[in-house]
Amino acid sequence: MPLNAITPAFENSLRACLPEASFRDPNAYVEEPRGRIKGEVGLAIAPQTTEQVATTIRLAGEAGIAVVPYGGGTGLVLGQVRAQGHAPLILSLERMNAIRATYPSENVLIAEAGAILADVQSAALAADRLFPLSLASEGSCRIGGNLATNAGGLNVLRYGNARDLCLGIEAVLPDGTIWNGLKRLRKDNTGYDLRNLLIGSEGTLGVITAAALRLFARPAQNGTALFVVPDPQAALDLLSLAQGQIGEGISAFEILSQEGYNFLSQTCPDTRQPFDNAPQWSVLIGLGLSAQQSTEAAFEALFEAALDAGLATDGTIAQSEAQAQNLWKLRETIPEANKRIGAIASHDIALPLSTIPEFIARAGERLAVLGDMRINCFGHLGDGNLHYNVFPAMGKKREDYADLRVPISRLVHDLTDEYDGSVSAEHGIGRLKVDDLARYGDPSKLAAMRAIKTALDPKGIMNPGAILPEIGQ
Amino acid sequence: MPLNAITPAFENSLRACLPEASFRDPNAYVEEPRGRIKGEVGLAIAPQTTEQVATTIRLAGEAGIAVVPYGGGTGLVLGQVRAQGHAPLILSLERMNAIRATYPSENVLIAEAGAILADVQSAALAADRLFPLSLASEGSCRIGGNLATNAGGLNVLRYGNARDLCLGIEAVLPDGTIWNGLKRLRKDNTGYDLRNLLIGSEGTLGVITAAALRLFARPAQNGTALFVVPDPQAALDLLSLAQGQIGEGISAFEILSQEGYNFLSQTCPDTRQPFDNAPQWSVLIGLGLSAQQSTEAAFEALFEAALDAGLATDGTIAQSEAQAQNLWKLRETIPEANKRIGAIASHDIALPLSTIPEFIARAGERLAVLGDMRINCFGHLGDGNLHYNVFPAMGKKREDYADLRVPISRLVHDLTDEYDGSVSAEHGIGRLKVDDLARYGDPSKLAAMRAIKTALDPKGIMNPGAILPEIGQ
Repeated sequence: MPLNAITPAFENSLRACLPEASFRDPNAYVEEPRGRIKGEVGLAIAPQTTEQVATTIRLAGEAGIAVVPYGGGTGLVLGQVRAQGHAPLILSLERMNAIRATYPSENVLIAEAGAILADVQSAALAADRLFPLSLASEGSCRIGGNLATNAGGLNVLRYGNARDLCLGIEAVLPDGTIWNGLKRLRKDNTGYDLRNLLIGSEGTLGVITAAALRLFARPAQNGTALFVVPDPQAALDLLSLAQGQIGEGISAFEILSQEGYNFLSQTCPDTRQPFDNAPQWSVLIGLGLSAQQSTEAAFEALFEAALDAGLATDGTIAQSEAQAQNLWKLRETIPEANKRIGAIASHDIALPLSTIPEFIARAGERLAVLGDMRINCFGHLGDGNLHYNVFPAMGKKREDYADLRVPISRLVHDLTDEYDGSVSAEHGIGRLKVDDLARYGDPSKLAAMRAIKTALDPKGIMNPGAILPEIGQ
Repeated sequence: MPLNAITPAFENSLRACLPEASFRDPNAYVEEPRGRIKGEVGLAIAPQTTEQVATTIRLAGEAGIAVVPYGGGTGLVLGQVRAQGHAPLILSLERMNAIRATYPSENVLIAEAGAILADVQSAALAADRLFPLSLASEGSCRIGGNLATNAGGLNVLRYGNARDLCLGIEAVLPDGTIWNGLKRLRKDNTGYDLRNLLIGSEGTLGVITAAALRLFARPAQNGTALFVVPDPQAALDLLSLAQGQIGEGISAFEILSQEGYNFLSQTCPDTRQPFDNAPQWSVLIGLGLSAQQSTEAAFEALFEAALDAGLATDGTIAQSEAQAQNLWKLRETIPEANKRIGAIASHDIALPLSTIPEFIARAGERLAVLGDMRINCFGHLGDGNLHYNVFPAMGKKREDYADLRVPISRLVHDLTDEYDGSVSAEHGIGRLKVDDLARYGDPSKLAAMRAIKTALDPKGIMNPGAILPEIGQ
C-alpha cells in the first residue's frame, strides 16, 4: 500500500487534537549535519505528551502518511531526512525533554526522549552519579535519538552502547498504542526483548518517548594519558596489558594516527601538540578509579610494563585537569580537522579486535593501488571501532577523486566484511547505508527484519526508507 | 493451523537426513527439575551440526510438528516440557558442545549451544580469562539454554545477564534458515537487534546453535565478606556506600534472611554457621579487584564506614579461600534447605531497588492475614532480584496449605506489580507463568510479541505454549 501525501484534511485532523504550539516550522527539520541532502518539507509536529505522540501516530496511520521521528537532528546516516516520496510528517520530540525522575539509590534516571544528552549527564551529576554516554554531539543530540540509533561514543569500552545503558522504555508503537515499559529493573525475563528491538531500530518500529536509564557511581578520580606505540598490534597488546592490570577501570582507549596530528597542525594550528614529532601511532587512555587507587600509579605501572614489553616508546601522563583536557581536545578536534581537509570517503567500521592490524595494513595496500591518498584511521580501538577516513593526497582536492569515492568505500567495506566486521559500528544504517546493509547483511536476518517490520508496521508509516528499502520502492 | 502428531512418515523423513546417532531415547527428556509435570514422550533428536538442526526444523515445519528445543533441562518454568497437545519433537543440543574458538586478545570465546556452562567457564579460565555467568546449575545447564532464557545468577550486578555476555549468535530460524550472526564485535549497528530478540525468547523464535561470548580480565584477587545489617534498607544503603567506595569491583551482593540460617541448621546441620545467633538480615559481598588494590583493605574501609553509619552491626571477612568457600556454601545451600523444608510457593521477582524494604514489610503483613507461614526471602539484592519463598509454619506441612498456594502467589505477584516489579526476574516465563505474563504484561507489548511470533513462526512450531499461549488453545 503506497503512502499518501499530507492533505489539508489530515492537517486539520491533527489540529483538532493537538495544541497550536505543537505545530512547528517544517523547514527547520530538513537539513542534515554534513549537508549531503535536503529532506522534503512536509508538516512538523512537536507533541508535549506521550498521548499526543500516540494520537499523532494513530492519525498518520489512518491516513497512510509517513512519519519521520526527529531527535536532535545530529545523525550522520540520513535517518532523520526523507528526500524521496511524499513529504513526511516530522515528529520532533524536542518539547518532551523533562527529566521525569531520578533515583540515585537505584542508579536510575527517567528522561523523556527529547532531553538533550548533556542535560541527562548534568541531571545524573546533580545526583552525584555518572551517566556515561558521551559523544561529540552531546550538546544537541537527544536521548531518544541516542537510543533509536544505539549511539556509541567514548565510553563504550567500559559502560557499553546506548542499549546497555537503558533499563526500560516507553514508546508509541506503529499502531498508535503506548507501551508502558519504563521498568527500573536489572532483571526482567517476561517475554520478548521489545526494548532492545526498538533500540537501534531508528524509528522504523515505533517512537521512543521516555527511557529509564542506568546511572553509575562516579569514579573518585579520573586520569588521562597518551602513549606512543610502535604499531596497531602494540596498541592492542597494550590494551590487554592494561585490562590485566586495571580491569574495568579503563574508560576509554582511543587510537590516533600520525595523519590526525598532521591534519590538526594544518587546519587547527592552535591545538597544542603533545610531542615534537607527531607519532605514527598513539593511544589516548582514560581511567576512572576508586578512591583507594591512584590513576598516576596505575599509569606509571602500565607505562613501565609497556616499555619493558616494547609496547610503548614514549608517553605523557596528564598531571592536571587542564592537561587532561588538552589531550582530550586533541582527540575531539580531529573530526573538525578532517572536515577542513575534506574527506573523499568516511567509514564507521567495527572489526574483531585481533584482525585490526592486518586490516589496517591490507586496506592501506589496496587503496594505494587505486591512487595516491591520505588515510586518517582513528577512533575507539578498545571497541574495535575505527573511523577509517580517506583524504586527497597533499595538494589535491576532493573533486579530483570524484570517480573513486564509490570504489574506495566498496573496497573498505568489502575488506571489513572479509574480516567479519561491521559496515556500521555506531552510526546506524539510516537511508545512507541501506544498500550496504542489503549487500553485507545476513540474508536470513534481513528476511526476519522485513517480517518484523511488516508485522509491527503493516502500513509502513514509520520512518519509511530507513534501514530497509521502502515497500514498493 | 493446528499442529500435527509425529507420524512414521515424518520420522522416516528425519532418518533419511540425519545419522543414526542423532536419535535419542525421548524418555530422557520429559522430566523437569522440580518434578511438577511430565512432558509427552515424542521423538528426540540430538543433531551434531547446525545444518542438521536446520534440516530438522525445516522438516518439522513442513510436517507441522511441534519442536521443543532442549539444553540442560534445568529450567524451572517448564520451558523444556510440553505436556499438552501432540507429543513434540525434542531437539537436544547436547551433541553440539564444542568450544569452537577462543580469542583471548579479543576477550571472546565461541561456544556451541550444547556446551555445558561449567565447560565454558573452564575454557575461559584456560585462556586466563573470566566468563562470569555463574548459577547453581552450572554443572549441567548448557549455554544455549542460558541464552534462550537470558539466565541471571550471581554476577549480574557486575557483568550483566546472559544477554549482556553475548556478542553474537548463530541460530536456526523457524523457517529452517541459518542466521550466521556470530559477530565478535562490541559495536554493530546494522539493523534490528535480532540477537537480543532471540535471547530470552525461550526457543519460541528459533534455536540458538552457537554464540560468541564476552570474556573478561580475571580479577587479580577475590574477596568475600558477610555483613550483618539492621534491615533491608540498611542493606541497600550499604550497597550504595560500597559502590561509592569500590565501584565496579563488587561482583555479588546477596541478601540472606534469618529463616535461611534456620532452615540450614534444621535441614543441613553440617553447614558451618558464621554467627552464634542467626542474624535477621545479612549480606554476602563478593569483590574482585585489580592487583594494585586489596580486598581486605576495601572490606575494612567499608565495614568501618558502615558501622559509623549504622548500616552494619557485625561482620566477618574471609581470611582464606577456604573461609570464602564456606561463606558461599552457606548461600548456595539455601535452595537445598528450602527444598527439604518444602515451599508452599516460590517466587522469582525483581523490584526497583528503593521499593524493596517497603515491599518486604507489606508482603509480610499481607501474608500474615492469610495464615501462619514462614518466609525465606533471599537472593540477588544488588540486582533487585528476590527469591521470595513461602513455607509452612513450624510443625505444619505443605499439604495443610493446599488452598493457599494460588492466593499466596497472587498476593506476592500483585504486590510486585504494584511496585512496578517483574514476576519473572531470571527464570523466564516457560509454560508455568504464561498466565502471569498475560495478567501482568503490558497489553501493547503482548500484542507486539504475538505479531512477532506470528511473523517469524507462522506455523507456530517452535516451542508452542511457551511464553505465549499456543495458537488455537
